[in-house]
Amino acid sequence: MFSKDIYINRRQRLKDKMNKGIALILGNIDAAMNYPDNTYHFRQDSTFLYFFGLDYQGLAAVIDFESGEEILFGNDFDIDDIIWMGPQPKLKDNALKVGVTQTHPLSKLKEIVSKAHQQGRKVHFTPPYRGENILKIGDLLNVNPLKVKEMHSIEFIKACVSLRSIKEPGEIEEMERHMAVAYQMHTTAMKMAHPGVTEQQITGILEGVSMSGGGPISFPIICSVRGETLHNHVHPNTLKSGDLLLVDAGSESPLHYATDHTRTSPVGGKFTSKQKDIYQIVVDTNNAALAATKPGITYKEVHLIAAKTMTEGLKSLGLMKGDVDEAVAQGAHALFMPHGLGHMIGLDVHDMEDYDQRLVGFDEEIQPSTQFGLAALRLGRRLQPNFVVTNEPGMYFIPDLIDQFKSEKKFTDFINYEMVETYKGFGGIRIEDDVLITETGSRVLGERIPINPEDVEAMVQSGK
Amino acid sequence: MFSKDIYINRRQRLKDKMNKGIALILGNIDAAMNYPDNTYHFRQDSTFLYFFGLDYQGLAAVIDFESGEEILFGNDFDIDDIIWMGPQPKLKDNALKVGVTQTHPLSKLKEIVSKAHQQGRKVHFTPPYRGENILKIGDLLNVNPLKVKEMHSIEFIKACVSLRSIKEPGEIEEMERHMAVAYQMHTTAMKMAHPGVTEQQITGILEGVSMSGGGPISFPIICSVRGETLHNHVHPNTLKSGDLLLVDAGSESPLHYATDHTRTSPVGGKFTSKQKDIYQIVVDTNNAALAATKPGITYKEVHLIAAKTMTEGLKSLGLMKGDVDEAVAQGAHALFMPHGLGHMIGLDVHDMEDYDQRLVGFDEEIQPSTQFGLAALRLGRRLQPNFVVTNEPGMYFIPDLIDQFKSEKKFTDFINYEMVETYKGFGGIRIEDDVLITETGSRVLGERIPINPEDVEAMVQSGK
Ligand SMILES: [Mn+2]
Ligand SMILES: [Mn+2]
Repeated sequence: MFSKDIYINRRQRLKDKMNKGIALILGNIDAAMNYPDNTYHFRQDSTFLYFFGLDYQGLAAVIDFESGEEILFGNDFDIDDIIWMGPQPKLKDNALKVGVTQTHPLSKLKEIVSKAHQQGRKVHFTPPYRGENILKIGDLLNVNPLKVKEMHSIEFIKACVSLRSIKEPGEIEEMERHMAVAYQMHTTAMKMAHPGVTEQQITGILEGVSMSGGGPISFPIICSVRGETLHNHVHPNTLKSGDLLLVDAGSESPLHYATDHTRTSPVGGKFTSKQKDIYQIVVDTNNAALAATKPGITYKEVHLIAAKTMTEGLKSLGLMKGDVDEAVAQGAHALFMPHGLGHMIGLDVHDMEDYDQRLVGFDEEIQPSTQFGLAALRLGRRLQPNFVVTNEPGMYFIPDLIDQFKSEKKFTDFINYEMVETYKGFGGIRIEDDVLITETGSRVLGERIPINPEDVEAMVQSGK
Repeated sequence: MFSKDIYINRRQRLKDKMNKGIALILGNIDAAMNYPDNTYHFRQDSTFLYFFGLDYQGLAAVIDFESGEEILFGNDFDIDDIIWMGPQPKLKDNALKVGVTQTHPLSKLKEIVSKAHQQGRKVHFTPPYRGENILKIGDLLNVNPLKVKEMHSIEFIKACVSLRSIKEPGEIEEMERHMAVAYQMHTTAMKMAHPGVTEQQITGILEGVSMSGGGPISFPIICSVRGETLHNHVHPNTLKSGDLLLVDAGSESPLHYATDHTRTSPVGGKFTSKQKDIYQIVVDTNNAALAATKPGITYKEVHLIAAKTMTEGLKSLGLMKGDVDEAVAQGAHALFMPHGLGHMIGLDVHDMEDYDQRLVGFDEEIQPSTQFGLAALRLGRRLQPNFVVTNEPGMYFIPDLIDQFKSEKKFTDFINYEMVETYKGFGGIRIEDDVLITETGSRVLGERIPINPEDVEAMVQSGK
């Protein structure tokens, strides 16, 4: 974890923003896979990690915004636990490591929370996303758990977002340090991109590279020769010559900061000229987005600059036509990129996505759009120094979507459907980097994973 | 999945055992890691898999034990899903693959279940182990979810246990086929057991070997030079010469059957003579247990035969003393092996542990014990052909437990505490195999992973 001053400081800044009531910050418990004691790898709640840093299960915290008190709740281990789990530090010693002096057994939590609740004081919490914590909040507040989902605190979420959006120097160091594991994962995938290898084999090896490098994967790996399926979490295919292998994968650092990169490689090591044309447009779009990413611009503008670069490229190939600005304004390019340009990244790969996307990525100035494509943009608001975002432009030929647009005669002024038809089966290409907003511009975090077509081809070929 | 006749047959046999009411069999949904859309790898509920085979999220099933109806509930995908997830088969087509003709959207589930409930018909379900399914059952039955936990059906559990305990030929084939991945995991770990390698690196590689071989790990990997900590899921250590590396790891087969093996290797490739003496006792105990494992014997007896072999070995080294039978009867050996000899294995690594251990591992004839050590035995009842169990004897020198027993003057007739003190820091050794009960005896499933000390040493050395 970080030094205790970091956590004390974060909680102080939180208290400066909040006036009334108490915050209830529940840690996670081990998540049951197929029975209570067979659990997935433990993942602490990110809000809990941010303010209290302790990375083990069965904890909860209360911050009283009126008295200023900070209390950690948890149970110490007994001899039976020690036989099974080994010697464990006491809660009060762990609490001191994050600057908290007041601790209680978990059984005391209900007394304190329900007392505040009964006194009519606001109990602030972020939206619970695990059934166990929904049940727990129901119990603590004496309400039916089925009614808990809408009881979260907008005010508390806004305070958390304003703190967590700006990464501290220690957070940036931690993220940048772990980029070496991301680099290793993606170059490993490139070297394995040869005919006869299976998607499942590559996925397994990448999970191993991540875990060996310090932590589990930060999200389910997308590793597919069917890259046009955006969130493809199945891996049934065997690579063959001519395929494009799309790998969107990341790793959690020891302190649980995420990496998130995508690269697309030619199976066997050589792009066809058709593939290379599309690939180069996506590289150009990624670079245009990177150049545009800087303090003061809204991320919505960056998205539209990327869309424009992409549309110009598609027009040069004859897949699109007409006025580029108008095509982008109407959202015609979204046939080829139906998702947003990127998102914030930090303790979560889509940072703070458990809160409420509108409160994280948007504000009074920039509101979410309802236009197809733009509606999928997760981040729209104005960028500030020490935000960390991913830029992930992609270009896909999705047969079902092409058929739908075509049959509805959508954007016939901008899309050359006859030529688009010849790209069915092409697949998809996405190229994603993690980018730090600096005082004056932005930079890719860590050594940039090979991105130019010749460099990707060389990396694939080196694995032969 | 298996052929549809298998599932039809299982449901028929279930219906033969049950008379009244309906079974509510909930599939799992994706489990949220740190926000709703960032999920752990999907694991279907084992009871659902056993009776309905379909391996994707958001499904539920009802079996009416009076009318004989079998109904699957789930939602079909729309165009938005297809963009993100790719083309998906329809529920009704999937249902036919497992022999079910009646399907409904998920929204219809509540109508059918709450109607049966209101009519006073018993709604049978197994104990839910995920918060989401607890909430769902509360909603379906119109009860506060906090009260759902104790509402499961003993009668239904007993029927499921009687079916799932006896593995079918197809299940045994699936398990045996996947033993090759277990073999590869454990020999990979042996080859990596050299000074300077970290526990975390080995754990990562093993997770990768499992996933590359067809499925994720079947339980959190124990990979530790502190083998005396029985359920050690942290991996902070770097291996050094003289350490014993204990690896307890398994993989899920494509159809989600588990493997579960433990091996203990000398870091660097050579046991010390002190290590070899203890190691050989554990091998002898494993072999004695294997020889005793056969139809007709109670697994409690097998456990006690193992305990006796172990006690004899410890006595020959001078660590124990006195009458062996009496020592085992009183449980003195549990200082060195505080856990049970093994457990059933199948769709779950501790098979059916979500039900109720007393209903899975015990019956009217053989009841759980309260004696320290024996109380941890998960399986006591009489073995039958086509049970699959693991035998996992281990020997540990747990400083806190030694101190506790010694200060309480426990078993001073049987334990030579003076000598035991000199083993503090030794660590722990466990050796575990997966064993099929045959018509006449038992056999290890798959090629046996190297177990004799010379073979283990040779495997470690081959990785240099
Ligand atoms: Mn991303
Ligand atoms: Mn086991």
